[in-house]
Amino acid sequence: MAQDHKIYRIAKIQVDPAQLEQYNAALNEQMTTAIRVEPGVLSYYAVADKKEPSHITIFEIYADSAAYNAHIQAPHFKKYKETVKDMVKFLELEDVAVIGTAKKPGM
Amino acid sequence: MAQDHKIYRIAKIQVDPAQLEQYNAALNEQMTTAIRVEPGVLSYYAVADKKEPSHITIFEIYADSAAYNAHIQAPHFKKYKETVKDMVKFLELEDVAVIGTAKKPGM
Repeated sequence: MAQDHKIYRIAKIQVDPAQLEQYNAALNEQMTTAIRVEPGVLSYYAVADKKEPSHITIFEIYADSAAYNAHIQAPHFKKYKETVKDMVKFLELEDVAVIGTAKKPGM
Repeated sequence: MAQDHKIYRIAKIQVDPAQLEQYNAALNEQMTTAIRVEPGVLSYYAVADKKEPSHITIFEIYADSAAYNAHIQAPHFKKYKETVKDMVKFLELEDVAVIGTAKKPGM
Protein backbone atom coordinates (compact mmCIF):
# COMPACT_ATOMS: atom_id res chain seq x y z
CA MET A 1 0.00 0.00 0.00
CA ALA A 2 1.26 3.46 -0.84
CA GLN A 3 2.39 5.50 2.13
CA ASP A 4 -0.14 8.05 3.34
CA HIS A 5 1.24 11.56 2.98
CA LYS A 6 -2.07 13.23 3.73
CA ILE A 7 -2.09 16.45 5.67
CA TYR A 8 -4.73 16.73 8.40
CA ARG A 9 -5.26 20.16 9.86
CA ILE A 10 -7.59 21.91 12.26
CA ALA A 11 -8.14 25.63 11.67
CA LYS A 12 -9.51 27.53 14.68
CA ILE A 13 -10.99 30.85 13.65
CA GLN A 14 -12.76 33.67 15.48
CA VAL A 15 -14.77 35.99 13.29
CA ASP A 16 -16.18 39.47 13.93
CA PRO A 17 -19.77 38.55 14.94
CA ALA A 18 -21.14 41.49 12.94
CA GLN A 19 -19.66 40.01 9.74
CA LEU A 20 -20.40 36.35 10.41
CA GLU A 21 -22.90 35.84 7.60
CA GLN A 22 -20.51 37.31 5.03
CA TYR A 23 -17.63 35.26 6.46
CA ASN A 24 -19.58 31.98 6.27
CA ALA A 25 -20.53 32.74 2.65
CA ALA A 26 -16.89 33.42 1.69
CA LEU A 27 -15.76 30.28 3.50
CA ASN A 28 -18.33 28.11 1.74
CA GLU A 29 -17.38 29.56 -1.65
CA GLN A 30 -13.71 28.84 -0.96
CA MET A 31 -14.36 25.27 0.22
CA THR A 32 -16.67 24.23 -2.61
CA THR A 33 -14.41 25.78 -5.27
CA ALA A 34 -11.26 24.16 -3.90
CA ILE A 35 -12.90 20.74 -3.75
CA ARG A 36 -14.22 21.14 -7.31
CA VAL A 37 -11.06 22.37 -9.03
CA GLU A 38 -8.10 21.14 -6.94
CA PRO A 39 -7.37 17.40 -7.12
CA GLY A 40 -5.32 17.51 -3.89
CA VAL A 41 -7.92 19.21 -1.69
CA LEU A 42 -9.81 16.24 -0.26
CA SER A 43 -12.18 17.30 2.52
CA TYR A 44 -13.46 20.24 4.55
CA TYR A 45 -15.75 20.09 7.57
CA ALA A 46 -16.57 23.48 9.04
CA VAL A 47 -18.51 23.82 12.30
CA ALA A 48 -19.39 26.63 14.69
CA ASP A 49 -19.65 26.59 18.48
CA LYS A 50 -23.39 26.61 19.28
CA LYS A 51 -22.75 28.98 22.21
CA GLU A 52 -20.40 31.26 20.24
CA PRO A 53 -21.29 30.96 16.53
CA SER A 54 -18.40 33.23 15.60
CA HIS A 55 -15.97 30.58 16.93
CA ILE A 56 -15.37 28.29 13.97
CA THR A 57 -13.43 25.05 13.62
CA ILE A 58 -12.52 23.65 10.20
CA PHE A 59 -11.20 20.14 9.80
CA GLU A 60 -9.18 19.96 6.57
CA ILE A 61 -7.58 17.10 4.62
CA TYR A 62 -5.08 17.57 1.77
CA ALA A 63 -3.47 14.84 -0.34
CA ASP A 64 0.09 15.91 0.55
CA SER A 65 2.22 19.00 1.22
CA ALA A 66 2.53 19.80 -2.51
CA ALA A 67 -1.27 19.90 -2.73
CA TYR A 68 -1.44 22.23 0.25
CA ASN A 69 1.26 24.53 -1.15
CA ALA A 70 -0.60 24.68 -4.47
CA HIS A 71 -3.85 25.40 -2.63
CA ILE A 72 -2.61 28.51 -0.82
CA GLN A 73 -1.49 29.94 -4.20
CA ALA A 74 -4.82 29.21 -5.91
CA PRO A 75 -6.90 32.22 -7.03
CA HIS A 76 -10.02 31.18 -5.06
CA PHE A 77 -7.97 30.85 -1.87
CA LYS A 78 -6.30 34.23 -2.38
CA LYS A 79 -9.73 35.77 -3.04
CA TYR A 80 -11.05 34.21 0.21
CA LYS A 81 -8.08 35.54 2.23
CA GLU A 82 -8.55 39.03 0.78
CA THR A 83 -12.33 38.97 1.40
CA VAL A 84 -12.05 37.87 5.05
CA LYS A 85 -8.93 39.75 6.12
CA ASP A 86 -10.92 42.29 8.17
CA MET A 87 -13.46 39.70 9.39
CA VAL A 88 -11.06 37.22 11.04
CA LYS A 89 -10.00 38.23 14.56
CA PHE A 90 -8.04 35.08 15.44
CA LEU A 91 -6.57 32.22 13.42
CA GLU A 92 -4.67 29.18 14.63
CA LEU A 93 -3.65 26.28 12.40
CA GLU A 94 -2.98 22.98 14.18
CA ASP A 95 -1.33 20.15 12.26
CA VAL A 96 -2.76 16.90 13.51
CA ALA A 97 -2.26 13.16 13.10
CA VAL A 98 -5.16 10.72 12.98
CA ILE A 99 -5.21 8.43 16.01
CA GLY A 100 -8.45 6.67 15.14
CA THR A 101 -11.61 6.83 13.08
CA ALA A 102 -14.80 4.80 13.18
CA LYS A 103 -17.93 5.50 11.22
CA LYS A 104 -21.07 4.00 9.81
CA PRO A 105 -20.95 3.14 6.08
CA GLY A 106 -21.66 6.23 4.00
CA MET A 107 -20.79 8.71 6.76
CA MET B 1 -36.77 15.51 3.64
CA ALA B 2 -36.76 14.55 7.30
CA GLN B 3 -35.40 17.20 9.65
CA ASP B 4 -31.81 16.67 10.71
CA HIS B 5 -31.60 16.14 14.46
CA LYS B 6 -27.98 15.05 14.39
CA ILE B 7 -25.70 16.05 17.22
CA TYR B 8 -22.25 17.29 16.20
CA ARG B 9 -19.70 17.61 18.97
CA ILE B 10 -16.04 18.34 19.41
CA ALA B 11 -14.35 16.78 22.43
CA LYS B 12 -11.06 18.43 23.46
CA ILE B 13 -9.02 16.17 25.68
CA GLN B 14 -5.60 16.41 27.32
CA VAL B 15 -4.10 13.12 28.42
CA ASP B 16 -1.27 12.34 30.82
CA PRO B 17 1.62 11.93 28.32
CA ALA B 18 2.96 8.94 30.28
CA GLN B 19 -0.32 7.07 29.66
CA LEU B 20 -0.95 8.18 26.09
CA GLU B 21 -0.55 4.76 24.47
CA GLN B 22 -3.02 3.17 26.90
CA TYR B 23 -5.42 6.08 26.44
CA ASN B 24 -5.37 5.83 22.64
CA ALA B 25 -6.02 2.06 22.87
CA ALA B 26 -9.01 2.59 25.19
CA LEU B 27 -10.35 5.35 22.95
CA ASN B 28 -10.09 3.22 19.82
CA GLU B 29 -11.83 0.31 21.55
CA GLN B 30 -14.67 2.60 22.66
CA MET B 31 -15.09 4.17 19.21
CA THR B 32 -15.08 0.94 17.20
CA THR B 33 -17.44 -0.82 19.64
CA ALA B 34 -19.91 2.08 19.70
CA ILE B 35 -19.99 2.28 15.90
CA ARG B 36 -20.48 -1.48 15.65
CA VAL B 37 -23.23 -1.96 18.25
CA GLU B 38 -25.05 1.38 18.55
CA PRO B 39 -27.27 2.36 15.60
CA GLY B 40 -27.29 6.03 16.64
CA VAL B 41 -23.52 6.51 16.92
CA LEU B 42 -22.63 7.65 13.40
CA SER B 43 -19.03 8.86 13.22
CA TYR B 44 -15.83 9.48 15.19
CA TYR B 45 -12.71 11.20 13.96
CA ALA B 46 -9.96 11.41 16.56
CA VAL B 47 -6.76 13.39 15.94
CA ALA B 48 -3.76 14.50 17.98
CA ASP B 49 -1.80 17.74 17.80
CA LYS B 50 1.50 16.90 16.07
CA LYS B 51 3.39 19.21 18.44
CA GLU B 52 1.58 17.95 21.55
CA PRO B 53 0.38 14.38 20.89
CA SER B 54 -1.36 14.25 24.27
CA HIS B 55 -3.71 17.02 23.07
CA ILE B 56 -6.53 15.19 21.35
CA THR B 57 -9.55 16.40 19.42
CA ILE B 58 -12.46 14.09 18.63
CA PHE B 59 -15.14 15.06 16.16
CA GLU B 60 -18.30 13.10 16.97
CA ILE B 61 -21.67 12.70 15.20
CA TYR B 62 -24.76 11.12 16.79
CA ALA B 63 -28.16 10.53 15.16
CA ASP B 64 -30.04 12.57 17.80
CA SER B 65 -30.08 13.37 21.50
CA ALA B 66 -31.75 10.05 22.38
CA ALA B 67 -28.87 8.23 20.67
CA TYR B 68 -26.35 10.27 22.63
CA ASN B 69 -28.14 9.66 25.94
CA ALA B 70 -28.22 5.92 25.22
CA HIS B 71 -24.53 6.02 24.30
CA ILE B 72 -23.34 7.43 27.61
CA GLN B 73 -25.20 4.64 29.41
CA ALA B 74 -23.73 1.87 27.21
CA PRO B 75 -21.39 -0.65 28.87
CA HIS B 76 -18.47 0.02 26.48
CA PHE B 77 -18.70 3.76 27.15
CA LYS B 78 -18.82 3.25 30.93
CA LYS B 79 -15.83 0.91 30.66
CA TYR B 80 -13.91 3.56 28.67
CA LYS B 81 -14.71 6.29 31.22
CA GLU B 82 -13.58 4.04 34.08
CA THR B 83 -10.38 3.03 32.24
CA VAL B 84 -9.32 6.58 31.40
CA LYS B 85 -10.46 8.42 34.53
CA ASP B 86 -6.88 8.84 35.82
CA MET B 87 -5.43 9.43 32.33
CA VAL B 88 -7.53 12.43 31.28
CA LYS B 89 -6.28 15.75 32.66
CA PHE B 90 -8.68 18.03 30.79
CA LEU B 91 -11.97 17.50 28.98
CA GLU B 92 -14.14 20.04 27.20
CA LEU B 93 -17.21 19.16 25.13
CA GLU B 94 -18.27 21.72 22.53
CA ASP B 95 -21.64 21.37 20.83
CA VAL B 96 -21.29 22.59 17.28
CA ALA B 97 -23.44 23.25 14.23
CA VAL B 98 -22.28 22.47 10.70
CA ILE B 99 -21.75 25.63 8.66
CA GLY B 100 -20.38 23.91 5.58
CA THR B 101 -18.85 20.75 4.22
CA ALA B 102 -17.17 19.95 0.93
CA LYS B 103 -15.37 16.75 0.08
CA LYS B 104 -14.23 14.54 -2.74
CA PRO B 105 -16.43 11.49 -3.44
CA GLY B 106 -15.56 8.67 -1.05
CA MET B 107 -13.92 10.93 1.53
